[in-house]
Amino acid sequence: MKFSFKNDYSEGCHPNILQALLRSNLEQEAGYGEDLFSLEAKQLIREKIGKKDSEIYFVSGGTQANLIVISSILKPYQAVISASTGHVLNNETGAIEATGHKILGIEKADGKLTPEDIITVLESHTNVPHQVMPKLVYISNSTELGTIYTTRELEDLSAFCKERSLYLFMDGARLGHGLTAEVSDLSLENVARLTDVFYLGGTKNGALIGEAIVINNPVLQEDFGFNIKQKGALLAKGRLLGIQFLELMKDDLYFDLARHANRQAMKIKNALQEKGTAFLSVTYTNQIFPILSNELIDILSQKFEFYIWKKIDDQYSAIRLITSWNTPDEGINDFIEIINRES
Amino acid sequence: MKFSFKNDYSEGCHPNILQALLRSNLEQEAGYGEDLFSLEAKQLIREKIGKKDSEIYFVSGGTQANLIVISSILKPYQAVISASTGHVLNNETGAIEATGHKILGIEKADGKLTPEDIITVLESHTNVPHQVMPKLVYISNSTELGTIYTTRELEDLSAFCKERSLYLFMDGARLGHGLTAEVSDLSLENVARLTDVFYLGGTKNGALIGEAIVINNPVLQEDFGFNIKQKGALLAKGRLLGIQFLELMKDDLYFDLARHANRQAMKIKNALQEKGTAFLSVTYTNQIFPILSNELIDILSQKFEFYIWKKIDDQYSAIRLITSWNTPDEGINDFIEIINRES
Amino acid sequence: MKFSFKNDYSEGCHPNILQALLRSNLEQEAGYGEDLFSLEAKQLIREKIGKKDSEIYFVSGGTQANLIVISSILKPYQAVISASTGHVLNNETGAIEATGHKILGIEKADGKLTPEDIITVLESHTNVPHQVMPKLVYISNSTELGTIYTTRELEDLSAFCKERSLYLFMDGARLGHGLTAEVSDLSLENVARLTDVFYLGGTKNGALIGEAIVINNPVLQEDFGFNIKQKGALLAKGRLLGIQFLELMKDDLYFDLARHANRQAMKIKNALQEKGTAFLSVTYTNQIFPILSNELIDILSQKFEFYIWKKIDDQYSAIRLITSWNTPDEGINDFIEIINRES
Amino acid sequence: MKFSFKNDYSEGCHPNILQALLRSNLEQEAGYGEDLFSLEAKQLIREKIGKKDSEIYFVSGGTQANLIVISSILKPYQAVISASTGHVLNNETGAIEATGHKILGIEKADGKLTPEDIITVLESHTNVPHQVMPKLVYISNSTELGTIYTTRELEDLSAFCKERSLYLFMDGARLGHGLTAEVSDLSLENVARLTDVFYLGGTKNGALIGEAIVINNPVLQEDFGFNIKQKGALLAKGRLLGIQFLELMKDDLYFDLARHANRQAMKIKNALQEKGTAFLSVTYTNQIFPILSNELIDILSQKFEFYIWKKIDDQYSAIRLITSWNTPDEGINDFIEIINRES
Repeated sequence: MKFSFKNDYSEGCHPNILQALLRSNLEQEAGYGEDLFSLEAKQLIREKIGKKDSEIYFVSGGTQANLIVISSILKPYQAVISASTGHVLNNETGAIEATGHKILGIEKADGKLTPEDIITVLESHTNVPHQVMPKLVYISNSTELGTIYTTRELEDLSAFCKERSLYLFMDGARLGHGLTAEVSDLSLENVARLTDVFYLGGTKNGALIGEAIVINNPVLQEDFGFNIKQKGALLAKGRLLGIQFLELMKDDLYFDLARHANRQAMKIKNALQEKGTAFLSVTYTNQIFPILSNELIDILSQKFEFYIWKKIDDQYSAIRLITSWNTPDEGINDFIEIINRES
Repeated sequence: MKFSFKNDYSEGCHPNILQALLRSNLEQEAGYGEDLFSLEAKQLIREKIGKKDSEIYFVSGGTQANLIVISSILKPYQAVISASTGHVLNNETGAIEATGHKILGIEKADGKLTPEDIITVLESHTNVPHQVMPKLVYISNSTELGTIYTTRELEDLSAFCKERSLYLFMDGARLGHGLTAEVSDLSLENVARLTDVFYLGGTKNGALIGEAIVINNPVLQEDFGFNIKQKGALLAKGRLLGIQFLELMKDDLYFDLARHANRQAMKIKNALQEKGTAFLSVTYTNQIFPILSNELIDILSQKFEFYIWKKIDDQYSAIRLITSWNTPDEGINDFIEIINRES
Repeated sequence: MKFSFKNDYSEGCHPNILQALLRSNLEQEAGYGEDLFSLEAKQLIREKIGKKDSEIYFVSGGTQANLIVISSILKPYQAVISASTGHVLNNETGAIEATGHKILGIEKADGKLTPEDIITVLESHTNVPHQVMPKLVYISNSTELGTIYTTRELEDLSAFCKERSLYLFMDGARLGHGLTAEVSDLSLENVARLTDVFYLGGTKNGALIGEAIVINNPVLQEDFGFNIKQKGALLAKGRLLGIQFLELMKDDLYFDLARHANRQAMKIKNALQEKGTAFLSVTYTNQIFPILSNELIDILSQKFEFYIWKKIDDQYSAIRLITSWNTPDEGINDFIEIINRES
Repeated sequence: MKFSFKNDYSEGCHPNILQALLRSNLEQEAGYGEDLFSLEAKQLIREKIGKKDSEIYFVSGGTQANLIVISSILKPYQAVISASTGHVLNNETGAIEATGHKILGIEKADGKLTPEDIITVLESHTNVPHQVMPKLVYISNSTELGTIYTTRELEDLSAFCKERSLYLFMDGARLGHGLTAEVSDLSLENVARLTDVFYLGGTKNGALIGEAIVINNPVLQEDFGFNIKQKGALLAKGRLLGIQFLELMKDDLYFDLARHANRQAMKIKNALQEKGTAFLSVTYTNQIFPILSNELIDILSQKFEFYIWKKIDDQYSAIRLITSWNTPDEGINDFIEIINRES
């Protein structure tokens, strides 16, 4: 069987999680997220983000988190601003629009937004009341292209949003990877300080399912739980989410797993760079987009699974490689060996 | 700690499921429900329901299943008919209305619908186009009151719905309990034959999460998967759902677990009946609603958790007791002992 | 041709309106409600309601007004409380639910709500977050049964809503008729003072189309115009609405027209009462619901059109008669003549 | 006062319409579009389009028509394809998204779509079920840039849509202008033959309000009236719409009015072309977009109102001039005189 670099959710979960599920399995617990595991996990997250007043809700996946957060914040005529690569824009079957809201996309090669980008949108939406009102800025970190925000960039964006009365929402499906990238200077505390809402992704970082939505802005906290239930996201056995995040948050396991994934990706990146390979985007996280010859791609395809991301010209294409919390050295070494041999 | 009869989702999952998760944990699998476990589980369900052309989708919970099924079927102006006790009507934070559809409730003491009930609704909705068009009949089995449908009742309802071009949808959050009730003559095959859509509930019958939506009507199958994704219900690690249903479907484990829950509830029911206790509804499943004196309720409350369901008069109230796939004899015996001693 | 008592929108509009349309027809005016007629009409309404800070928007009809107001106010998980006779509940093809919100109906024989009614709903919606949150109280005056609120009743309701943080919204499709009923002690100023939002109905009181939404609560005024446009209610030639309300508001024409309609209905009511006729509801507005023998109904049907509202028993039914701003004495006299002759 | 070229809805309506309203004003008629005027107007339209089985519904405005048609056709996960200039995309406050549907925009300088454009969208939406399913092609004729479709172009588009199971919907807010352009070879019959749905715009062509939605595809006709009512678009006094379309359809008044508007615009266009003026788009309808020096724009602004559409460079901008069914020669001549004098 081929080894897969297609995504970071090909395996199950970190063994600690399964052990915790086994240990607690027959204990009776309150339903709907009122269990002790969930309460303790939330407390742990509050400590790690350094904000004791943030509210935390666990849901199953990223699309679910995005649609619940966005639809809970916006009035019917308000819209989302997103980079054109944003997961909400093109990978969620219109989940946001299905809740009634337009997404205004901005073409960005690196998948990141700046105040200048947002100004462009604001300036083209002044025909009141004939156009939607842009109100929420959606960013992801790491982005869908594997890139990351610096502390300075996030501070600028946050200040700009406050000034213009826009909400700032960070999709953190791969937040662990973003924060542990070797070149990242952004801390979890700063993410919590600079955003109105963000989430800590579990599914792509060692959990079976689970994203932890963190609501920092008190205005957005009011009655938020109703939205979770109404959108079908409130698990009867909420313990399943609580237990997982409790394990991930203990002793920085969450960040260790992300660091591992990043490290494995960087090994391949470095090997390719030594061969002079170009990349579609400059990444230090667990996603890399090398541009390879079609011949090399064919050879790699015989032993590995990955997506061909973009045709560059008749001879070259960019592929996407994603590593996970569990990617073993063996898979990496085999891949590098072929590269060294064939290029 | 008190033993809880509050619901059937207080514990984790059947141990077989955890073992299967452990066994498969580090295998790489395709995402989004394309994994081999999910495919095999679906095949097993198709065999058990005796319909090889039904389409099956796994989702996380009941509210999610209800809102996805209903919103995928109805046109904007079409409405749901439900008993007033229906879960969709009063326990899902307006999840169905949030997708745009009115629910027309019918007061029913036993929680079950008949063709006569539906006729009443149809006859009061003839002012075209000023009223919604009733189009989907929502029933649950076992119902929210623990009652069940006989084969004959379901056949009548199904024939009536076909005749009037209504869709028949069965909420099976507790389908296992309904079908294995000692007085039930209804088979899983007949449920599949007589409904347009139904689901097999896992969450309340030994799974961590999971409901298996079964679409029998080919018209409703078309492109259904888009709805799952759009509503945020498509798990990246769909294997979590596949593995669970694979275990539950093996060797009739699913029905064994439900039978156990029913049996434990019946023990309490019988003990109460011997004392002359009245009940709010006649049930043979894992939910019972005995009417007890407030004194006895106080005494029971010291050792057990349960809901006080309805005040009957100044001296009596109905309580709700729910047993689960894992309710041990000990809890049952302790409860019965108090009853025998105190009443 | 039969004379129709079916409704109050069988004729065109008051002649003053047509004359004003003729006078202004070829003047160029700004579009989308920014025309001078609309601005002046709004100013006139502000003067008559005695609230210079209320915001006013003109839309085409009642269902449109209801769905725009309600969807603009409520968060996704919030619901409407309405009498079971409420127009929004059963006569608008699920228009409110189509915007995502449940309506909680309360059975009321007279079509009016009291604080006690609302308490019942609030007390049965405490299972947070599994049920919708009741947030907006919808009333109509006159009601769908022709009944009206007294000042005291509206004050009680208003105070109760404020205390419980509920919004109070009055559907005024027949507000003119409600306020000019001979037994009404309620003033337009008090309606404006005691509600968060209400509207002045034009369609059923001498306009071709048009309802004037009046938003008294400043919190609900913010950016309201976006909702009008998004729901397709912003007329390019908004002058059509402005001109009509300008004419209706001049010299109390609006109330004169309603008074005429009421007076004509009362003539029939009095004639029937002299014959000992019973009525379904006690009304002093332009709707009456007399209970007549089927024989008499047949005879009346030969010369008049009206709705048979409700079967009372094998021999009697209630009918609905509605008079309008334009109902001539002749129609009334003919009707009374038959009654006097036949009963 | 300045003469306005800002839009084609600055004046009231054609005098014939007011006369017809006067004539019929006090006649009693059935409500909700069941009046005789509406029935006769629909019959007249069916004759003119040469399709006796098309269904016709009158609504008040373009945004309303667009949102009702689109939301009635699409399933929740289906999307609209539109040119980036499409009215639905940027001028309707997210009205379409508010009904749950994404609009996929295609950058087009001339505002028109071709099969090749659509293929691009289809080919980038193959990641089932993670992306929306493009299902309805929205075009306008004349377009928002004043351009028009030829018969051949519409035939190609129609054939392509049928082949790919896409619905073709033409926004005809300015259909009269499109069909009567001097270079147009497209007939109303062909519009009806080649589209699934289209509408005949009245508001911008001499009516007070009103668009006539024509549903040619029988599949889309079923129960359509419910959508009209649910979206708040069913006028109680539907006669207002019926009377207007009856007048517009008599003796080709509808097309005469559009022809007049086009002719007046062409006079200015020709005068400008003689001076060597460039235009933003090549139009033969009632919208023209000349590129003028800022000095000339300033001079014109002293006597005329119009929109400055787009900055071209530091010295030049494009303006938009729109003429109407009622634009008098005087306004045109004054404008041309300044041009001739100043440039």
